[in-house]
Amino acid sequence: ETAIPESHPRHESLLARHRIEDGVEKGITSRQGLIAQGRGEAYDYLLGERTIESADAAARAAAAQFLLADHPVISVNGNVAALCPDAVVDLAQATDADIEVNLFNRTEERMAAIAEHLREHGASEVLGLAADAQIPGLDHARATVDADGIHAADVVLVPLEDGDRAAALDAMGKTEIVIDLNPLSRSPQVADVPIVDNLVRALPLIAEYARELRDDSREELETVVEEFDREAALDAAERTIRSSTTD
Amino acid sequence: ETAIPESHPRHESLLARHRIEDGVEKGITSRQGLIAQGRGEAYDYLLGERTIESADAAARAAAAQFLLADHPVISVNGNVAALCPDAVVDLAQATDADIEVNLFNRTEERMAAIAEHLREHGASEVLGLAADAQIPGLDHARATVDADGIHAADVVLVPLEDGDRAAALDAMGKTEIVIDLNPLSRSPQVADVPIVDNLVRALPLIAEYARELRDDSREELETVVEEFDREAALDAAERTIRSSTTD
Repeated sequence: ETAIPESHPRHESLLARHRIEDGVEKGITSRQGLIAQGRGEAYDYLLGERTIESADAAARAAAAQFLLADHPVISVNGNVAALCPDAVVDLAQATDADIEVNLFNRTEERMAAIAEHLREHGASEVLGLAADAQIPGLDHARATVDADGIHAADVVLVPLEDGDRAAALDAMGKTEIVIDLNPLSRSPQVADVPIVDNLVRALPLIAEYARELRDDSREELETVVEEFDREAALDAAERTIRSSTTD
Repeated sequence: ETAIPESHPRHESLLARHRIEDGVEKGITSRQGLIAQGRGEAYDYLLGERTIESADAAARAAAAQFLLADHPVISVNGNVAALCPDAVVDLAQATDADIEVNLFNRTEERMAAIAEHLREHGASEVLGLAADAQIPGLDHARATVDADGIHAADVVLVPLEDGDRAAALDAMGKTEIVIDLNPLSRSPQVADVPIVDNLVRALPLIAEYARELRDDSREELETVVEEFDREAALDAAERTIRSSTTD
């Protein structure tokens, strides 16, 4: 899809940047989304552009949460849709989750473009356009979700979520899985399962674990969830960013 | 210029983001520029969004280099023009430097929009549009500069420069001052004076030092330059990013 050679040491990072810029072209990604991508690039660079051990454990716990859920929903914004639509669709299939488009800067055009983009990548149903419910405690534009989607979900995956909304979803009592490259930002801090990793790596990893754990009993899945230590994972991520050496 | 209250703890950062987005509106900032802004935000956050001591020393050395120069030039790209046009014009006045627009993704429209924007902010002359010389060792689009501007300069300030071009300017034997928030990126690594700081803070600081040092003798200015230790400054910046605590 681009002229970036696979042998380029920063191939993945450059490919992601290309996809995000492409997302702007398609009306999927916003200007704020481009800036957010840059922030993510910097943290990923400091993290060593790899899935650290604690993030791997978090992805496994996330998979267990998905499998334990009655009604799991994957929230998708412009950057997520631009970066890894196939991985979103595959994870939804692996975990029987719904996909809901949910934007920080909501416009009908962007909602429709993202839903269409996800359907082009194989999503059978995309929620978010009904917009018939509100998350309590947020102003209207930020609060809007689908009644039978995020509003009704017991487990929700919010990759690259805004801090206020992550906190409001947490206050609703939902089990929240957050993927964010900055362990210090508010979204992973409030998450039940914070995954400090690039979502391009994390989403396929959760799907892989979901397939691996699919036949486990509820007890076994609950053990996976209980054994995951969110505080330790956040600390390990921060320690890696603060102290790892990159070349 | 915005509704962001000055009391907001992240006022400066949000204001910068607003200016960059405004720059896109005006045809000044590119998509790559938005992503670069995001990377800068992340590093500045880890740095504590303040000028660390070694960056202050670097700004002072940069001021001395400007005053010692026969032909100093300030290179301006879309992000620099969008973020701090006034500071660029003020620094040019304080150091008797020329201003040259120089873009990584050069288009005539963007060149003209940036030159116009700088003139609106008080620049009397803006170089870069003649495009009658080349920096050796770069492909044509990246190499284009003005013969009587960057090509002839003995001291050049390149805030937020691409690594390849920073290296090529260094290879031309120019004294290079780089402002970059990532101490590990190639531009500050090849710079004679790497300033690891937000350019919104660094540019006014260099101008302040230039006015303070203006009446010093060449010997005194040379001492300021000699006393600055670039390796120590880069190490201190990396150490701060890796180990400081932010709240």
